[in-house]
Amino acid sequence: MDQRIARSTLRVRGFHLDGYQHVNNARYLEFLEEGRWAYFEKQFDLAKLFNEGLAAVAVNLNINYRRAAVMHDELEILTSLSSLNHRSAVIHQVINRIADGKRIADADFTFVLLDTRSGRAMAIDGELRETLQRHVLDAPAGTE
Amino acid sequence: MDQRIARSTLRVRGFHLDGYQHVNNARYLEFLEEGRWAYFEKQFDLAKLFNEGLAAVAVNLNINYRRAAVMHDELEILTSLSSLNHRSAVIHQVINRIADGKRIADADFTFVLLDTRSGRAMAIDGELRETLQRHVLDAPAGTE
Amino acid sequence: MDQRIARSTLRVRGFHLDGYQHVNNARYLEFLEEGRWAYFEKQFDLAKLFNEGLAAVAVNLNINYRRAAVMHDELEILTSLSSLNHRSAVIHQVINRIADGKRIADADFTFVLLDTRSGRAMAIDGELRETLQRHVLDAPAGTE
Amino acid sequence: MDQRIARSTLRVRGFHLDGYQHVNNARYLEFLEEGRWAYFEKQFDLAKLFNEGLAAVAVNLNINYRRAAVMHDELEILTSLSSLNHRSAVIHQVINRIADGKRIADADFTFVLLDTRSGRAMAIDGELRETLQRHVLDAPAGTE
Repeated sequence: MDQRIARSTLRVRGFHLDGYQHVNNARYLEFLEEGRWAYFEKQFDLAKLFNEGLAAVAVNLNINYRRAAVMHDELEILTSLSSLNHRSAVIHQVINRIADGKRIADADFTFVLLDTRSGRAMAIDGELRETLQRHVLDAPAGTE
Repeated sequence: MDQRIARSTLRVRGFHLDGYQHVNNARYLEFLEEGRWAYFEKQFDLAKLFNEGLAAVAVNLNINYRRAAVMHDELEILTSLSSLNHRSAVIHQVINRIADGKRIADADFTFVLLDTRSGRAMAIDGELRETLQRHVLDAPAGTE
Repeated sequence: MDQRIARSTLRVRGFHLDGYQHVNNARYLEFLEEGRWAYFEKQFDLAKLFNEGLAAVAVNLNINYRRAAVMHDELEILTSLSSLNHRSAVIHQVINRIADGKRIADADFTFVLLDTRSGRAMAIDGELRETLQRHVLDAPAGTE
Repeated sequence: MDQRIARSTLRVRGFHLDGYQHVNNARYLEFLEEGRWAYFEKQFDLAKLFNEGLAAVAVNLNINYRRAAVMHDELEILTSLSSLNHRSAVIHQVINRIADGKRIADADFTFVLLDTRSGRAMAIDGELRETLQRHVLDAPAGTE
């Protein structure tokens, strides 16, 4: 797997389900957040940005629900940086069922980088852009 | 307020927050689900469809995070049906802070209507389309 | 109802359930937290303590699950202060199904009062004890 | 580690926290549920009971909060069966911070075994008692 993709896994438990016996649609956002934390742990130079006073703040999340995940499913979450805009960036995430590789959901998470001292969104240029650019994966994670 | 809009309210509590002292981005999806249940309770003829064996299944959720909600904020969730496609429909939802009317988030929730006996998505035509059409609000909820 | 009891209500939604179509046992703790926030909002002199730098920190929660709550149930949460120890205090909480008054769950929540500046648990004596004592309900909430 | 103890691990993420930047007290119940599922996956003969139509239904949970878990903490959850009553059984669970072995929380979860066809709690005797008895750990998990 491309080094620019982080992979997390989890097993679906009873508390993830709702009354339809499917994973509740809000829970997937926790799975995605889990994936993003794993991503930033893996990409040390990005984690460093956060230690230096930047914070990633969500501005949009767009999620496609492809198939229902059910009790005991083992899932993988693939996370990568997919594009940079002038003041925002996009993380692409895919959730697959490991047993058969079928797609459960995919999402684009758009965020700004907030300077926590000034409270302002940073322009993504200069050194910051170079650092992020090295992580951008042109082909979205999970489509290979 | 237009009768085709349902309004729910809630107060932000400690368990809704995350370590940034903001409402966690996954929690908003529970607020939105709360709003959709309130919507279907209000629109009796739609609730009737569900009692007769249809289920609304999410296919996409697209949410914009506009402002952070914080502890003790009183929020309103405005929910309405915004468009019908051939096999899917879209619910538009807005979350506002009641104190000053500022927008916290807005979302479009796209769903199919599943016939729970056959497991198949229904075409939205004939009587079903007429029933749904009466609820469609052209101007999105919360923009008036 | 005794003024020393705070009452909150909520309706069970799909995201509260788990795969058994019952409210998941972890969710009741969020219902209880909701009840405690409502309690402290009602008892102004206690809320004042928190504004002055005290925080209630959980040390034990003991919950009895009496009956399963299910989809669409309307629940009430009754919250009162039930006893004071030397360095801790106990809040008693009851969750009832409103339709028939049946008990769903009851819990005792034991907490210490932390001085957030020193990080130390306060002894509950002097003026602090007098303030709290006025709220203690000898008969547990919900048993009348 | 004694084969009668199951061990799960997890890392604390942003969505587990609340506004105090500690793991919210309701979240620990999800961690404990995670631990119980891992336990039943490990103890095949117990999992078999569930496949044959028994369900474990919570009647009481008693949890001690010892220390606050915070962002990035790696936690372990140790789960074992600790006692059998006539109609109920008790699972003991411990949550430790892996880095230094410090206790975060411990809990006793009392449950009945429900026959899902009759809807009745089973007496724990005969073959069922023998099966369960083999898993009972006299010394509570995590105290060695």
